[in-house]
Amino acid sequence: MAVNPDLQKERAAATFDTEKLTAVLYGGKKMVQRRRYLHNIIFEDKYMNSFKPWWNRSRIEQYETAIKKGAYMNKLIKDLNITDFLEQSYLKEAGSNHEGQPMGVHQSMFIPTIEKLGTNEQKAKYLEPAKQFKIIGTYAQTEIGHGTYIRGLETTATYDPQTEEFVINSPTVSSIKYWPAALGSTCNHVVLMAQLYSRGVCHGMHAFILQIRSMKDHRTLPGISAGDIGNKIGFNAVDNGFLKFDNVRVPRNSLLSRYAKLERDGTYIPPENPRIAYGTMVFIRSLIVGACAKSLSQALVIATRYSAVRRQTEIRPGGEEPQVIDYQTQQEKLFPLLSSAYAFLFSGTVMLKEYFRINADIDKGILDEMAALHGLAAGLKAFSAEVASNGVDKLRMACGGHGYTHASGIPKIWTYMTPTCTYEGENTVMYLQCARYLVKQYAQAASGQTLVGFMSYLNNPVKQRSSLNDSLSMVDLIEAYEHTAVRLIKVAASKIQSLVKGGLPIEEARNRCGVSLVVAAKAHCHAFVVKLFASVVKQPEIDPAVARVLVTLCKLYAVYGINQRLGEFMQDGFLDGRQADIILNKTLTLFAEIRPNAVALVDAFDYPDQILQSCLGRYDGNVYEALYEYAKTSPLNEKEVQDSYYTTLKPLMEGTLKFDAAPPSKL
Amino acid sequence: MAVNPDLQKERAAATFDTEKLTAVLYGGKKMVQRRRYLHNIIFEDKYMNSFKPWWNRSRIEQYETAIKKGAYMNKLIKDLNITDFLEQSYLKEAGSNHEGQPMGVHQSMFIPTIEKLGTNEQKAKYLEPAKQFKIIGTYAQTEIGHGTYIRGLETTATYDPQTEEFVINSPTVSSIKYWPAALGSTCNHVVLMAQLYSRGVCHGMHAFILQIRSMKDHRTLPGISAGDIGNKIGFNAVDNGFLKFDNVRVPRNSLLSRYAKLERDGTYIPPENPRIAYGTMVFIRSLIVGACAKSLSQALVIATRYSAVRRQTEIRPGGEEPQVIDYQTQQEKLFPLLSSAYAFLFSGTVMLKEYFRINADIDKGILDEMAALHGLAAGLKAFSAEVASNGVDKLRMACGGHGYTHASGIPKIWTYMTPTCTYEGENTVMYLQCARYLVKQYAQAASGQTLVGFMSYLNNPVKQRSSLNDSLSMVDLIEAYEHTAVRLIKVAASKIQSLVKGGLPIEEARNRCGVSLVVAAKAHCHAFVVKLFASVVKQPEIDPAVARVLVTLCKLYAVYGINQRLGEFMQDGFLDGRQADIILNKTLTLFAEIRPNAVALVDAFDYPDQILQSCLGRYDGNVYEALYEYAKTSPLNEKEVQDSYYTTLKPLMEGTLKFDAAPPSKL
Repeated sequence: MAVNPDLQKERAAATFDTEKLTAVLYGGKKMVQRRRYLHNIIFEDKYMNSFKPWWNRSRIEQYETAIKKGAYMNKLIKDLNITDFLEQSYLKEAGSNHEGQPMGVHQSMFIPTIEKLGTNEQKAKYLEPAKQFKIIGTYAQTEIGHGTYIRGLETTATYDPQTEEFVINSPTVSSIKYWPAALGSTCNHVVLMAQLYSRGVCHGMHAFILQIRSMKDHRTLPGISAGDIGNKIGFNAVDNGFLKFDNVRVPRNSLLSRYAKLERDGTYIPPENPRIAYGTMVFIRSLIVGACAKSLSQALVIATRYSAVRRQTEIRPGGEEPQVIDYQTQQEKLFPLLSSAYAFLFSGTVMLKEYFRINADIDKGILDEMAALHGLAAGLKAFSAEVASNGVDKLRMACGGHGYTHASGIPKIWTYMTPTCTYEGENTVMYLQCARYLVKQYAQAASGQTLVGFMSYLNNPVKQRSSLNDSLSMVDLIEAYEHTAVRLIKVAASKIQSLVKGGLPIEEARNRCGVSLVVAAKAHCHAFVVKLFASVVKQPEIDPAVARVLVTLCKLYAVYGINQRLGEFMQDGFLDGRQADIILNKTLTLFAEIRPNAVALVDAFDYPDQILQSCLGRYDGNVYEALYEYAKTSPLNEKEVQDSYYTTLKPLMEGTLKFDAAPPSKL
Repeated sequence: MAVNPDLQKERAAATFDTEKLTAVLYGGKKMVQRRRYLHNIIFEDKYMNSFKPWWNRSRIEQYETAIKKGAYMNKLIKDLNITDFLEQSYLKEAGSNHEGQPMGVHQSMFIPTIEKLGTNEQKAKYLEPAKQFKIIGTYAQTEIGHGTYIRGLETTATYDPQTEEFVINSPTVSSIKYWPAALGSTCNHVVLMAQLYSRGVCHGMHAFILQIRSMKDHRTLPGISAGDIGNKIGFNAVDNGFLKFDNVRVPRNSLLSRYAKLERDGTYIPPENPRIAYGTMVFIRSLIVGACAKSLSQALVIATRYSAVRRQTEIRPGGEEPQVIDYQTQQEKLFPLLSSAYAFLFSGTVMLKEYFRINADIDKGILDEMAALHGLAAGLKAFSAEVASNGVDKLRMACGGHGYTHASGIPKIWTYMTPTCTYEGENTVMYLQCARYLVKQYAQAASGQTLVGFMSYLNNPVKQRSSLNDSLSMVDLIEAYEHTAVRLIKVAASKIQSLVKGGLPIEEARNRCGVSLVVAAKAHCHAFVVKLFASVVKQPEIDPAVARVLVTLCKLYAVYGINQRLGEFMQDGFLDGRQADIILNKTLTLFAEIRPNAVALVDAFDYPDQILQSCLGRYDGNVYEALYEYAKTSPLNEKEVQDSYYTTLKPLMEGTLKFDAAPPSKL
């Protein structure tokens, strides 16, 4: 079908070359081509196209499809010798987008943990088989009653020096492992996080590797119960599972012993730096920033294209119904989130770079920046997940009623991304961890120390009033964010201090300042992202036309954010009512500036229809035809007349309906 | 199992009698008993308990179960002679809570529309059969390309005086009816909204009644295509459907002709007041306010009880992990929404009363308050739906990771309630309709007219500075809300006026002020709810201990709302920085005041476990046992080893996996 004329018009009117912006996003023209090449391998693959649409799969079919696709894509990756992490992810996003992959955790957590925490001997034993899928593993940490606070985990590994074995046990219902992916049906090995007991002493959480299902028939080994945790609002292709141990004995070398060790006689040798074990989690948190940006940008493609072809409500009586995107209220739903998506895409790239840089240092034993990375990753993970989860849902509703059907594609994106708010560290706990780091840094700055890197703004001289005016300079905007972040960190820090002086234990004082601490952490993350965005758009290698539109987006990101948190910027008089007016008016002006480029800005994310899987977000804009076709695939349309017509409706209408109570079915 | 001691302790510590508050919510002790009696009829019914759990039903099973339950409950209602609307809803909420009911629209829209718009002859022909389910109908308005803006609907009903018939047609893909419930498989009749053409003139949208499926075999009649629109994120028990006409002829008396009439020769006689046709929509919008409050309060029961039994992260090293509800950050997630739920429950009751009062007037031909009711219903529908949709999702996340599984019950509540943001009038359009009314009223007030009822605050004398202080009087709080609402209405109205003066057509001027208008409408609704809440808690018949806790909730509702929109209250200097500090500090003080009553406040909503269907929200607090039991019901646990192990995992591990591309399945 021909491209909808509204979309043609939008694309023709853009002030910049979409391809050039795409290149900025994906690290150059070559990478863009490579990404498309990898996508197309999947799109053109006969096997990958042989499954029925996901929106009609039963729970078991969802799982089975994911297993098959996963195995197949891993084979492709091997056959084509695709070794780069990013390239692998491009191939996979083309094939199992928003479905989740039961074997994903095997690659993202099981193997990396062995690599990070295993001795050379353990690596030799497990790594190669794991990479070749001779064994399949997961990472079993979360318990039914214990999540983010990992010191509270209850599973025990008690060393028995007599037999040189650990006894693994789930002492309570709340200690049952719950949630790990691949645990329900897929894996036969686990990295298990458990409290290590030796000689009657608890040495805290340690990682063990052990087998849970038979290599012969896949049944769970004696003393072990494992299964799926049941249906969820999404991620139903993944067998998140439970795991319960009844005093199961495993050999001493099950303890991953690169750092912490246990000698034959039960003597415990602690790691030099206990926080080192959390490296994998920091990595995943860094990845989440980019992943959230990706989900948000996919929902934006859908909602923006649909808003350009969707026409509703005549503005002038008798006139044509305008494109929905021409309503200021619709622009307010789309454009601020568009600016957030770009902000987080750039932040995600920077976070990963920082992770790899600092991680290389850690491998060399340089741990100076570990706390800074931990704090930043925690805060940004929470910040990007929160904005994206709320944002994707807002974009669903920006599509009106059609957003609610799976035909729109947005519910699937949302159910896939919203767990990032709770997994790998619950958001509020993450904000509080970030805030704790900020309060410490604030105390250092207050005591006269010069801070480096992205904390250096805590040393800025205190100013009473913003000089922000109609010219809307980025310097003034960044200053306003940093000023307000400093103020809010100070508010929280001073409050804690005064409560402690008043006799409260520090922990209780912190709790009584919880709300202020979260506010401070968000303000810090917000300021960090604004500044980062402003620095990215200034890069001299960016094409001038592209740079212009990015500057507009960056300004919108900054002014809209102030608008949303206006009270915080006004409370100490840093911004006044007149400046607040400027901020509101400029927001609307920036909407108008972005308007002609809106479709091009989402085209630049470069998500093909096969990834979006959306009737509303199609590149060609033929949304109504697609919705009608989608309807025809409904399971309820397989028969023209449902069985329930004969069993229920017909007798109801004829007044002859009888009700027999069958015994309740277990499932 | 025994009640969790944490919950026992919470209940014992409450400062008021839960039963007395429940009586306030449901209109007296007697109604509470009656409500419980009606619930228990369902809970103890053998037939109603004979179905497998909803979380494991396929799409078709969901639909069939809903049809059976619906037919059965309607029979119960008839047999037990339950005639009151509210009593019927209590029975139904016990039996099909959050599942949706395909035949609901038959009773809530199809029958009422015939009652409202049918002639006596039409009523005689259709009403009795409809009430006895001899015919089953739906209300077919929304089209694939047309939603809230009903004047844009494309379906045509063209009168042919030769045969005295209407020719019903769907001229385009975008004109296909899409979304009406019961259309997919259930109904055989529809009330159809279509553009009436006669003698070459379009007379706009009118309601027709016609048959679409055979009374003999349920197949669609010639020229008609109908079916289900496919799977959605929720409401999958309901067969939302599509409907397409290919020049189908129906007799002249298909036009519902109580108000608008068409004579044999094609002469059109318009209704006296064309807005009268929208009565049903206003009724549904009024209902939505209470429905949103209900969903929000159910999610609150779950999240609050779980927060009381869930323990996480020691506050003091080595100490017991505290109840999550003792974290200030958790209180911030729960308590403001708790205050909103009470606010909306009271608002919902008032809205229904107002509807019945004004509707009785309309029936008598008194139309004075129709516009006021329309504006209020539009605004409050949007406001309550927005707060509840975001709120229920926030409460899901307040349950950590467990919120995401259907075991928590919250995803089902959310997918059931979030469509209220778009159906029966998309929220933004509703805010704009409300704002348009406000701007008109503002102009009247500005021209010296004295306004009555809930608009009278527009006549308040303008004050420059709030006298709000540490004593936190409700008078000051209400004044702040009303002052800010007036200011924001004025900002929008003045802006429109100045754009019009500058030469812009009024419609375009309104669009350029869209964001300001929505802000104004929200401010108005917020002020309305605060004032209403404050007046309810002052009712002298409320028990003093209950009144005290309601006053606390009401204050929290007011101060937290200011906190969230602080900039709006500060922008003109009405509140200053010092007062903003008071607001923030009081919020935290109020959290502490509510804390001991939190569990009792959600108990008072009086939702039995059978309605909540939540492992986390159980009255007895035994959440972990329940989660473990839930897990065991997973479809993936029916077999210990999945088929896909043999077809895929085993060969993968053995290195013998082959991939055969089957031809793609259509479904």
